[in-house]
Amino acid sequence: MSQRISILGSTGSIGTQTLNIVDQHPKEFIVKVLTANGSLDVIHEQMKKYKPEAVCLVDEDKADELAKKTKGNVHVLSGYKGLDEAARWETVDTVVQAVVGNVGMKPTIEAIKAGKKIALANKETLVSAGAVVMPLIKKYGVELTPIDSEHSAIFQCLKGENVKEVSRVIITCSGGPFRGRGIRDLEGVTKEQALNHPTWKMGGKITIDSATLMNKGFEVNEAMWLYNMPASKIDVVVHPQSIIHSMVEFVDGSIMAQVGHHDMRIPIQYALTHPKRIKLDVQPFDFVKAKQFTFEKPDMDTFECLKMGIEAARQKGTVCCVLNASNDTAVEAFLHNKIEFLDIQRTIRAVMGKHKNIKHPTLKDVLDADKWARKETIKIINA
Amino acid sequence: MSQRISILGSTGSIGTQTLNIVDQHPKEFIVKVLTANGSLDVIHEQMKKYKPEAVCLVDEDKADELAKKTKGNVHVLSGYKGLDEAARWETVDTVVQAVVGNVGMKPTIEAIKAGKKIALANKETLVSAGAVVMPLIKKYGVELTPIDSEHSAIFQCLKGENVKEVSRVIITCSGGPFRGRGIRDLEGVTKEQALNHPTWKMGGKITIDSATLMNKGFEVNEAMWLYNMPASKIDVVVHPQSIIHSMVEFVDGSIMAQVGHHDMRIPIQYALTHPKRIKLDVQPFDFVKAKQFTFEKPDMDTFECLKMGIEAARQKGTVCCVLNASNDTAVEAFLHNKIEFLDIQRTIRAVMGKHKNIKHPTLKDVLDADKWARKETIKIINA
Repeated sequence: MSQRISILGSTGSIGTQTLNIVDQHPKEFIVKVLTANGSLDVIHEQMKKYKPEAVCLVDEDKADELAKKTKGNVHVLSGYKGLDEAARWETVDTVVQAVVGNVGMKPTIEAIKAGKKIALANKETLVSAGAVVMPLIKKYGVELTPIDSEHSAIFQCLKGENVKEVSRVIITCSGGPFRGRGIRDLEGVTKEQALNHPTWKMGGKITIDSATLMNKGFEVNEAMWLYNMPASKIDVVVHPQSIIHSMVEFVDGSIMAQVGHHDMRIPIQYALTHPKRIKLDVQPFDFVKAKQFTFEKPDMDTFECLKMGIEAARQKGTVCCVLNASNDTAVEAFLHNKIEFLDIQRTIRAVMGKHKNIKHPTLKDVLDADKWARKETIKIINA
Repeated sequence: MSQRISILGSTGSIGTQTLNIVDQHPKEFIVKVLTANGSLDVIHEQMKKYKPEAVCLVDEDKADELAKKTKGNVHVLSGYKGLDEAARWETVDTVVQAVVGNVGMKPTIEAIKAGKKIALANKETLVSAGAVVMPLIKKYGVELTPIDSEHSAIFQCLKGENVKEVSRVIITCSGGPFRGRGIRDLEGVTKEQALNHPTWKMGGKITIDSATLMNKGFEVNEAMWLYNMPASKIDVVVHPQSIIHSMVEFVDGSIMAQVGHHDMRIPIQYALTHPKRIKLDVQPFDFVKAKQFTFEKPDMDTFECLKMGIEAARQKGTVCCVLNASNDTAVEAFLHNKIEFLDIQRTIRAVMGKHKNIKHPTLKDVLDADKWARKETIKIINA
């Protein structure tokens, strides 16, 4: 039977790669819902091709425009309310949650409450709201599978294993474009330099997160929630080639690693089809051509975002949300040339220093902390 | 409940490491049977410590001597018949089959027929007699788990996976002490040079097999039988650090790898406890200290034993047994300074060229081919 999917964020990088997988396996998947922020033309093309039952544009004016174009033969939803509706759409089995940013938290919760299987690419769901989302996952008995290459690697390494027998999770890290540089070398680096990631091609925000290593800090938090693992059991090792996507070490000393091309379609597809694996049009990996994998210790004095990420994971609570929200705001300011590269970590550190952590937050606590951290970050930036 | 084990070859490298595991987990295992070739004193010490119900020495005179020493409070078996008895010993759940050489085939078959779980270190069981042993495994519904680090790695990579979704098995190979040398550089290499393996410390015969890469040729054959995999789907890649013990690539492009220290206790223990993993006194693996993993193409023109191993795996049948028997005889001649290093592969090639393959052999066909190949090899060596 075909898997009926809803793609939240269908015009982005994860969304379009998900559709590429659907193209390769038209019998495996049926696209029921597509959503985007405001990319009217792209989603209109996608609608013609995949004929979903519903589409949503968060931008309400664009949604109106789309509704006119489609003349009523598809449900056109709009706004954040529409996104929530898309997340719980009745005829859908699996929600691909690829919305960018903290607006992704709410639809994930809607999908959980509606009993959907979730393939998760949205970081905020776990980094900011892990303490709220994980109990819901348990309560509603739904399955949440990571799309992120590192967490998919861990998920694959745990296949058939007992989580109690894990001694350590080892998250690999490319080191970003500034690997090997000291703090002084990072004064005055440009946006263009920061956007030039050595291995993965991604959106602007996430590429900056990879340059500051905040991305890795987030991943420690996500792994902690996904696998119910204390942060103390999660290590980060720099592996510049990014071919080993992550590893799990067990009590017997054996380490399982997941390895392969930089191709996000592999983890996306696995999130959809696991425990089954289906054919994907990728070349066999050529180890001889790859030549070598190297490993280094991450430099957390220089890349303090990683250190703060690990600190937050050890504390848990609203501090994780503050980390994310402050980073969001600071990175945006950097992308708009308002602050320097190193100001990102300095600003976040200052905001985290001011926050009073709530260890076991409600969703309201999380949303309040998020709002507070954004305001506080802007205050510091403008000071 | 404790696992009751029989260790065939308890005084060798695999045998003593198995006992080390027993020492660490006295509640998990009970040693019921110990066997050795002729190491009277060592097995006598082991008996005092582990108090088995039965022991066997293949050397009958030594067995008599041992029987006198033990004064009837333990069954002392002797000869190959005794080894067969040890393999099917009634109170045993699992047979650790660590006998060296073709004399291991028969006891493995005895253990299978007695319904024992088998942890297999003996190469000949599969290389020479795979075509006979695998149908028996199926017929008697027993479980056979590899102890070899490469095959244990593959076994672990396949945990929870569907073998039908495998696109390729990638066996790693240290390259041996002569990696990087051409055929001319191998003229006149000494026994001492050949015995100096870069990563693993093993017995003489297997160390020479690692220097000629015959070991890898055998492993292709074993993987083929163990995982019911055509030889065409089995690749060999040189990885001098031997930290990745082997890998499996799936149809979705994802590759699972098993990684870790050079410590044979990891695969031995896993063969005994799987799917469970239990604690072993190994240090966490330090990737930063390991620094790098490199990969190269194996040079099959220089190391023709690997090429012949793959050829045999593609043909199947008695030719695999001839490969093993001729290699056995040629390596022994090399270890006794009767032939040069390169004569090993030259001799085997000549013997294989003369053999008429029986594609679907009986055990008798295998034993006949074994005998023929040894004779033929000696003939060529003495010519």
